[in-house]
Amino acid sequence: MSTAQIPVVTGSRSRNRGRRVAVVGSGSWGTTFAKVLADAGCDVTVWARRPEVAHEIQVAKRNSQYLPGINLPKGLKATSDLAAALKGASLVFLAVPSQTLRQNLLDLEPYLDRRSVLVSLVKGVEKSTTMRMSEVIADALDLDPARIAVVSGPNIALEIAKEQPTGAVASCADLGVAQEIATAVSAPYFRGYVNTDVVGTELGGVLKNLIALAIGIVDGVGYGENTKAAIITRGLAEMTEFAVASGADPATLSGLAGLGDLIATCQSPLSRNNTAGRLIGQGYTQEETREQMQQVAEGITSVHPVLELARERGITMPIVEQVQMVLSGTMAPKNLGPHLATEDEVPQPELSLGGPRPGRLRRLLDRLKGSPS
Amino acid sequence: MSTAQIPVVTGSRSRNRGRRVAVVGSGSWGTTFAKVLADAGCDVTVWARRPEVAHEIQVAKRNSQYLPGINLPKGLKATSDLAAALKGASLVFLAVPSQTLRQNLLDLEPYLDRRSVLVSLVKGVEKSTTMRMSEVIADALDLDPARIAVVSGPNIALEIAKEQPTGAVASCADLGVAQEIATAVSAPYFRGYVNTDVVGTELGGVLKNLIALAIGIVDGVGYGENTKAAIITRGLAEMTEFAVASGADPATLSGLAGLGDLIATCQSPLSRNNTAGRLIGQGYTQEETREQMQQVAEGITSVHPVLELARERGITMPIVEQVQMVLSGTMAPKNLGPHLATEDEVPQPELSLGGPRPGRLRRLLDRLKGSPS
Repeated sequence: MSTAQIPVVTGSRSRNRGRRVAVVGSGSWGTTFAKVLADAGCDVTVWARRPEVAHEIQVAKRNSQYLPGINLPKGLKATSDLAAALKGASLVFLAVPSQTLRQNLLDLEPYLDRRSVLVSLVKGVEKSTTMRMSEVIADALDLDPARIAVVSGPNIALEIAKEQPTGAVASCADLGVAQEIATAVSAPYFRGYVNTDVVGTELGGVLKNLIALAIGIVDGVGYGENTKAAIITRGLAEMTEFAVASGADPATLSGLAGLGDLIATCQSPLSRNNTAGRLIGQGYTQEETREQMQQVAEGITSVHPVLELARERGITMPIVEQVQMVLSGTMAPKNLGPHLATEDEVPQPELSLGGPRPGRLRRLLDRLKGSPS
Repeated sequence: MSTAQIPVVTGSRSRNRGRRVAVVGSGSWGTTFAKVLADAGCDVTVWARRPEVAHEIQVAKRNSQYLPGINLPKGLKATSDLAAALKGASLVFLAVPSQTLRQNLLDLEPYLDRRSVLVSLVKGVEKSTTMRMSEVIADALDLDPARIAVVSGPNIALEIAKEQPTGAVASCADLGVAQEIATAVSAPYFRGYVNTDVVGTELGGVLKNLIALAIGIVDGVGYGENTKAAIITRGLAEMTEFAVASGADPATLSGLAGLGDLIATCQSPLSRNNTAGRLIGQGYTQEETREQMQQVAEGITSVHPVLELARERGITMPIVEQVQMVLSGTMAPKNLGPHLATEDEVPQPELSLGGPRPGRLRRLLDRLKGSPS
């Protein structure tokens, strides 16, 4: 895109002049995010575990394994030396697998500037502890909440690498820090917004995988857009109820990190959860699906723990429960649909489905007013 | 689907035993909806303007022009005699073009039972008056609000005709009437919910066309799922703000008649607004698009009046404004994207995008509490 047509370029690039940032991880998402930061005008260094990947990014401005065909920005630097990558970085973006994050944090701790902020780009929970990524950071490094942040939104890496416009939310308990991060990531094709609801922002990225599984299943059955739209609508209501019971702001789930990410994931043919669901909907067993995909989709492993937590919190999640029944073979995929969720003699009010409930609104208002919730 | 697998069938069918209803209009939506009602156990008569269509439905249980290949229920009746169709009908479902509704109402008035309820299945506004369909009914027939209702949701006709599961909201100022309608429409593959927010339920079906145009445009440019998800997320926020300023409940827009219908329309390749947008996004002018489609998409004619109303109500609708700029040729389709909506030095809070704003919540809570808004 030429700068003449995108007036924001000059402004945002100049706002980021001299801002040193690091990206830890050089998979497709880490590399793409490093490109976003560089295109936003930041001074970016990517850390790659493998020297040959660092070398290719540094010298050829390519990452042919993870982003074939994508030209990386001229100024983007890469190294396999963690100390060099972190030196002087005010923001350290983490783009590593959710299950290795804790070890990566311990590895980078010695080189971390005592004022730098750690920003998770990772969606998921640590399986052994069921902690969200920001909780893993807090637990592993014992940092102040103002130094822990997350970025999340409708962010399929390859589309962003192709500079197709989208946005994301930068979330931190400290609003000023969130604004600094949002400014750092605002490139011509990528817009950063802010909130202070870290819990809601992270849970959106975790819970959407369960709904994407349901969408995949009905896709495999052969159902069309009505069914999927109804599942997304009611799925968002389930996600919101769970997140609010975990301390999130319902508005976060209506935004880019909730609804936005949910829609993009449910529509993407590249989503692993979508693909796993589709195979199951077509009649493959859970085991055949795992073999065929050579991996377990994140959503499948989350179904049980999320339902456990939902029960503890007194919440019902009819769609996720139906997914579990399909996975365990006690419900045929073709019966997973919105009409089967409950059976009432008297039709239900719509309020209890798609929108916030009065009780939830009251809690939110109490928070806004500063009274105890 | 066999009844053995869908336990709801018996229950809902028996609830509707002896319920006489009429469907006015035998296009794809009217015929599909008549099938839903018959599958829900109602005693249904369809009125078709053309005797040959009525005859085919009545005798061959087919509507080969509008629903090729779909078998209609055995018990479904059809006639081109309006008096016969309406005789004894407690619910009269209207499935006629939005621009002929007023005339159809005047035609049927002499045969209308004085207790029967009129239920609009029509999405759109009357161009000459900018009235919503329920307003046209009230204006033409001077009925009590408890006798005027609407049904709306993610309802692409052909998918429902194929019995792919979905649902819709029955909305009436009188909750009991809404429940009666929701019961009447609850078939094994179609679930009825209720609310009393007629304004919100109808506006969802009108405003979604504007966002579907934007989705079509970026689809034509070649943008992917991230961009579309971001536009749907922020588009819903714009729709909600407009609807609330018109007296709607924000929760309605988060439900099946808002978000649900929006997603289904934006994903459907059959949507006229989607197609029109795509042609424009590919570089065709508005006139070439009209010629190619041999009709004007509803969304295109609504852009200007909706923006006028938004200005009157002090609301900004950045995405709809960008659609207008693209339509008028002052913005290139490829620049329609979430990142261009506003230009701020300091990144915006996400709250102002996707979710309800504090002021809106306060108004809603005041309503729930019964205090003046």
